[in-house]
Amino acid sequence: MDRCDQLAACSEEAGRVTRLFLTPPMHDVHERLRRWMVDVGMKVRIDPVGNIVGRRLASDSQTTDLQATDLQATRVLLIGSHLDTVPNAGKYDGILGVLVGLAVVEALATVSLPFAIDVIGFSEEEGVRYSQPYLGSRAVAGNFDFAWLDRCDAAGISMREAVASFGQDSSKIADAAYNAADVVGYIEAHIEQGPVLERAGLPVAAVTSIVGQSRLVVRFLGAAGHAGTTPMVPRRDALVGAAKWIQEVQQTGVRTEGLRATVGRIIALPNASNVIPDYVELSLDVRHESNSIRLAAIDGLLDAGCQIAKSDDLEFSVAHRSDSRSVAVSPRLESILCESIAASGVEPLRLASGAGHDAVVMGEQFPMAMLFVRHPGGTSHHPDERVDVEDVAVAIDVMVDFVKRLADQERVE
Amino acid sequence: MDRCDQLAACSEEAGRVTRLFLTPPMHDVHERLRRWMVDVGMKVRIDPVGNIVGRRLASDSQTTDLQATDLQATRVLLIGSHLDTVPNAGKYDGILGVLVGLAVVEALATVSLPFAIDVIGFSEEEGVRYSQPYLGSRAVAGNFDFAWLDRCDAAGISMREAVASFGQDSSKIADAAYNAADVVGYIEAHIEQGPVLERAGLPVAAVTSIVGQSRLVVRFLGAAGHAGTTPMVPRRDALVGAAKWIQEVQQTGVRTEGLRATVGRIIALPNASNVIPDYVELSLDVRHESNSIRLAAIDGLLDAGCQIAKSDDLEFSVAHRSDSRSVAVSPRLESILCESIAASGVEPLRLASGAGHDAVVMGEQFPMAMLFVRHPGGTSHHPDERVDVEDVAVAIDVMVDFVKRLADQERVE
Repeated sequence: MDRCDQLAACSEEAGRVTRLFLTPPMHDVHERLRRWMVDVGMKVRIDPVGNIVGRRLASDSQTTDLQATDLQATRVLLIGSHLDTVPNAGKYDGILGVLVGLAVVEALATVSLPFAIDVIGFSEEEGVRYSQPYLGSRAVAGNFDFAWLDRCDAAGISMREAVASFGQDSSKIADAAYNAADVVGYIEAHIEQGPVLERAGLPVAAVTSIVGQSRLVVRFLGAAGHAGTTPMVPRRDALVGAAKWIQEVQQTGVRTEGLRATVGRIIALPNASNVIPDYVELSLDVRHESNSIRLAAIDGLLDAGCQIAKSDDLEFSVAHRSDSRSVAVSPRLESILCESIAASGVEPLRLASGAGHDAVVMGEQFPMAMLFVRHPGGTSHHPDERVDVEDVAVAIDVMVDFVKRLADQERVE
Repeated sequence: MDRCDQLAACSEEAGRVTRLFLTPPMHDVHERLRRWMVDVGMKVRIDPVGNIVGRRLASDSQTTDLQATDLQATRVLLIGSHLDTVPNAGKYDGILGVLVGLAVVEALATVSLPFAIDVIGFSEEEGVRYSQPYLGSRAVAGNFDFAWLDRCDAAGISMREAVASFGQDSSKIADAAYNAADVVGYIEAHIEQGPVLERAGLPVAAVTSIVGQSRLVVRFLGAAGHAGTTPMVPRRDALVGAAKWIQEVQQTGVRTEGLRATVGRIIALPNASNVIPDYVELSLDVRHESNSIRLAAIDGLLDAGCQIAKSDDLEFSVAHRSDSRSVAVSPRLESILCESIAASGVEPLRLASGAGHDAVVMGEQFPMAMLFVRHPGGTSHHPDERVDVEDVAVAIDVMVDFVKRLADQERVE
């Protein structure tokens, strides 16, 4: 917890935690992490996309010779999360997973393992500086898109320049990738960023999958008119149509087990108290573990939008849509993780992650598991973000046990 | 119509019609109007609040001597509207009523009248520059609030300074007021700014009253949460509550004959696609000829807001409220106006004005009537604002006939 506080002080803004991709305070974070990693015997490197990677070597007799001759051939378990933050963030989103990884290595100091452990602090996950999330994990997973290097941030600095200013060579980002055959798996501890564990009264839970997500922008078009002189019928009030649709979204969410359906953003024009709105733009965010249930919900809501438009003499259209499929957790790793949770005396609750994480990207390339840590108050991306020290202790215990069980399985294989 | 075009060219902005209270282009407007007024034999003055007033003297034998000795004692019919505009306005809102007044005087050149006619171009009605409408008519009606002189516009110029820059002495604004006993009445021609005449296929209509209006700002407060991680139940989504209420507003409007109920403005916070909104602010605009029906509708909607808040675990509050009572038209003047409309061969439709006009203020002090002119397309406060020349001709004919009938009645009395 003290380390979380220390890293929170590495910020672009005094009094607030703001640390975008490869901004100067990330050097301070790396310096502290390097010291802590070295203290527990790890070898540390910064990769070309600005991830910090601390390696604890394997230490089973079977593998010692191999390491000496060819470090690259050593199989490795990856433990990580991200070190960047949103503007005015809390202290735990991302950071906690990196520091839990470090604590796990520390706890395993005297334990022989048949694989190395790389604790990775990803340089970017939030997508704030370049409107592109997962820069760090995409490089490690080997699917970094080099076209992103030409993107510019709000100050006009290209990603290529940002990487160079940080002291790295973006032309070598491909070198950050791991060979999938070498990776035993990837596990990430992260605050839940939701209320489920708090409501269940549990400190940790195993993630079953990271839900698929559809993000849409829809529009209702009507006709403006004077609020005082235009009779109620007929009116073509885009906000009335939008209001009906917002309720459809909410009712679809409530009706469909496991679905999350949210209108978070609304823009009405001209947005004047005495003018009937002729334009309303709404965001729609829909998530579910099942891709087919999610897509069916979207279909239903688009139908509902058309019906409302028809009955209210409006136009309804989809201005933007992006869909991402749900990402499965490795059944093997999840099963071990549930055993470890149970071994810690905690009921092994399993829940889907409604938010994206580096684990989404890592899970596309490597066996992946995730451990959620209770998040009291549920406020995330905000200075009020909290975790309880007792829950962090449970998370570390569970992860240490997980590594031991995984090591046992790997030795048998 | 040509004069409307000429005055539209007197603007603060090239290519757009923008003429706020006492800005320099108002001098150009006054100069043109003065010439036109003088051409039809009127005496012209600018009053201390910047209204232009052109007087056509009474010309009945009975009153000729009186005028010569005491002009102030002459009874007078006021015909007017306003000369200021909203930013990027059309050419007819306000202006048309002043020019129709001028055309009426011109048409009556050889007609004896038992009262003078003052055609007034009010300096301000829209309330843009000082967030206070009706500055011109309030001075004429004798209820100008001198505290307004200390208000500053967006550039920091006080109203007192603005009046002085225009060449007037704000300390004398009380002199702009008419003695109610001297005023036969006030009549204003104005574009409808609504679709009723167009739908009815009629060129003009008599206004029955100017509706009372309630303007509220209400708030729904809930709890923010991550759109992906927060289960649908329970959520405290302020936008879902607001959506229900928007429908209540619309349904109340549809249900209640003559009511206009509009939510024109909505602000949601944090207004991010992936966050459940915890704050929504809505405007409510309710208008009706009957004060009691309007107030009952507001009561019902506030109850509905509380019920929604209760069922959705939100807080509902009224952040701001202002109410203005409906203003009645003089039954005598309206009756004459309907006769004049019928005499022009037009079905005498009577309708309430849903918008405020100088007639609101004038009607509080003097017998008042209003003539609406068809407004094709219904777009007002916008460059697309239109009127048809044939309808303007009908309006002038009706007003000329109105003045003659009123003169006949006055002579009899």
